[in-house]
Amino acid sequence: MRILSGVQSSGRLHIGNYYGAMRQFVQLQDQGEAYYFIANYHALNTVRDPKLAQELTRDAALTYLSLGLDPKKAILFRQSDVKEVAELYWILGTVVPQSNLERAHSYKDKVAQGISPDFGLFAYPVLMAADILLYSADAVPVGKDQIQHIEFARDWAVKFNTQYVPGYDPADPEGKERGHSPGILKLPAAHVQESTATVPGIDGRKMSKSYGNTLELFGEEKDIKKRIMSIKTDSTPVEAPKPTTDAPLYDLLRLMLPAAEFAEVDATWKAGGKGYGDYKKKLLEAFHTTFGPARQRYAELRADTGELERILQDGAQRARAEAHRLMDQVRRAVGIP
Amino acid sequence: MRILSGVQSSGRLHIGNYYGAMRQFVQLQDQGEAYYFIANYHALNTVRDPKLAQELTRDAALTYLSLGLDPKKAILFRQSDVKEVAELYWILGTVVPQSNLERAHSYKDKVAQGISPDFGLFAYPVLMAADILLYSADAVPVGKDQIQHIEFARDWAVKFNTQYVPGYDPADPEGKERGHSPGILKLPAAHVQESTATVPGIDGRKMSKSYGNTLELFGEEKDIKKRIMSIKTDSTPVEAPKPTTDAPLYDLLRLMLPAAEFAEVDATWKAGGKGYGDYKKKLLEAFHTTFGPARQRYAELRADTGELERILQDGAQRARAEAHRLMDQVRRAVGIP
Repeated sequence: MRILSGVQSSGRLHIGNYYGAMRQFVQLQDQGEAYYFIANYHALNTVRDPKLAQELTRDAALTYLSLGLDPKKAILFRQSDVKEVAELYWILGTVVPQSNLERAHSYKDKVAQGISPDFGLFAYPVLMAADILLYSADAVPVGKDQIQHIEFARDWAVKFNTQYVPGYDPADPEGKERGHSPGILKLPAAHVQESTATVPGIDGRKMSKSYGNTLELFGEEKDIKKRIMSIKTDSTPVEAPKPTTDAPLYDLLRLMLPAAEFAEVDATWKAGGKGYGDYKKKLLEAFHTTFGPARQRYAELRADTGELERILQDGAQRARAEAHRLMDQVRRAVGIP
Repeated sequence: MRILSGVQSSGRLHIGNYYGAMRQFVQLQDQGEAYYFIANYHALNTVRDPKLAQELTRDAALTYLSLGLDPKKAILFRQSDVKEVAELYWILGTVVPQSNLERAHSYKDKVAQGISPDFGLFAYPVLMAADILLYSADAVPVGKDQIQHIEFARDWAVKFNTQYVPGYDPADPEGKERGHSPGILKLPAAHVQESTATVPGIDGRKMSKSYGNTLELFGEEKDIKKRIMSIKTDSTPVEAPKPTTDAPLYDLLRLMLPAAEFAEVDATWKAGGKGYGDYKKKLLEAFHTTFGPARQRYAELRADTGELERILQDGAQRARAEAHRLMDQVRRAVGIP
């Protein structure tokens, strides 16, 4: 099984990203052939500063590697290092119904917010489909908000195959019946992360870069401490039992502590007798226990720029071989020499 | 001055294309550095048959060369042989306002006709702008219906430069003032073909592939003859003067005959005494005198596939050098390694 996932290099990653998605990605490298790319073409829709764009790309790659992605197992590469994706983006676009894109959630949401969108935002599901189809991915791990994009990629693969592949039957889109072709573009399946935890931010809302309520995975030690110490709590006295709902501190402890340790915290939390300050210190310790090794790898890799570039070049080379194979077929099918 | 033009390889060319555009293109090769490309990515929006797509691409190139394009002077290449255009298409798209494309004439016309458009049709002004900007063209010879597309390319070049080039001032878009940058993307000028003849088809309407009323430049001799003999005429008797309005035969003679020869035809036409059949024979002669040499070159080149491919490869190599130069700057500006 080939698994593909992209991470957009449009901001520093936080523990919401980790528990929401990246933890699973790293685990998936043992379940199949994993392709992970840093989506730096997509990022141009939001990051308009070249230095920051490069820094965020580098940082996303460092993050994957620090969290345990093994470049010998998984293929890690920059989207822009495999130029074929832009060609497939154009070619695929010629069979994409405009009406599909007009009803894309991501686009409609932006318009509803009164944002005057650029074409890149409107077009990005097509580039995303090209990202997936270029590598004949079987499964794409996504959050629920991304299911529509995978459905689009499937629909457009069927459209392309129906138009251009002799013997392809859209009623048998994977070509399982005798005499039917499986097509050139493989239909990906959305691998929905059902059990994904919603991670609260330090203000109690969902952790999100846009709320400024994050705990960055590789943030400065001082800043992490300051942010943990400012997690929103109520005025329950030290002696009293603490509420367990609308309690981001409690939720974060549950997320980061091993079960046995959390059971102890849970007991005193509900009994009372300890202040929020103590629990915050506990959380800070848990943060460093959980992410300490990754933070150290991050610091080491960050200092060795040659090694990171070597890993990304190697990943690009392996991804490119697959892209070449697919694009040879696509070009032949449409009549591009 | 660098001149750029593309011809869409979406159908066999006829004398309407020649007098409307191609004649000028061939003349322009002596007025500057000319880049002519066969727009085979664009053609995918309408040609969905790989054999036909390849045949039409080849045919468009043969047509240019047969009509006198000199591959030593002008750069003739296939759009798809310079892959950088697809990358610029994505990158440029991230600064293109969606609202511009929604009011593009070409798209609005299709929607007004009740055509349910594909994304490729909506997006094609962006690819067209990339075609132009990739080669830093100074002038793009176009018909009036294409002026909007050149204006888009200019606007988007200004947008890109303003966003990404330090020292660029949109109030001085060519960077003529001291201390201002001329930007990375050069603003093209539309070179409007004001004097372009409207060529009537054999049924009297404008000559157009979609009306099926064309005279193909390199059509079969028998077919040309049959079509010329079926040019729509009225029932004016042989002896009587012939009308000069709503008279496609008269217009075609004026277009194809040298001035001195046409003066004679004009005199008898207005005096009467000759039948339409005689004038049709005259037109057939004029067709062969005008296009005979080109038709012969076409037949020769068509037989020598190696030579055509060699010319296109050479053109692609020269175009690619320019594309590399530009894309190095674009990538650096946006932060793509």
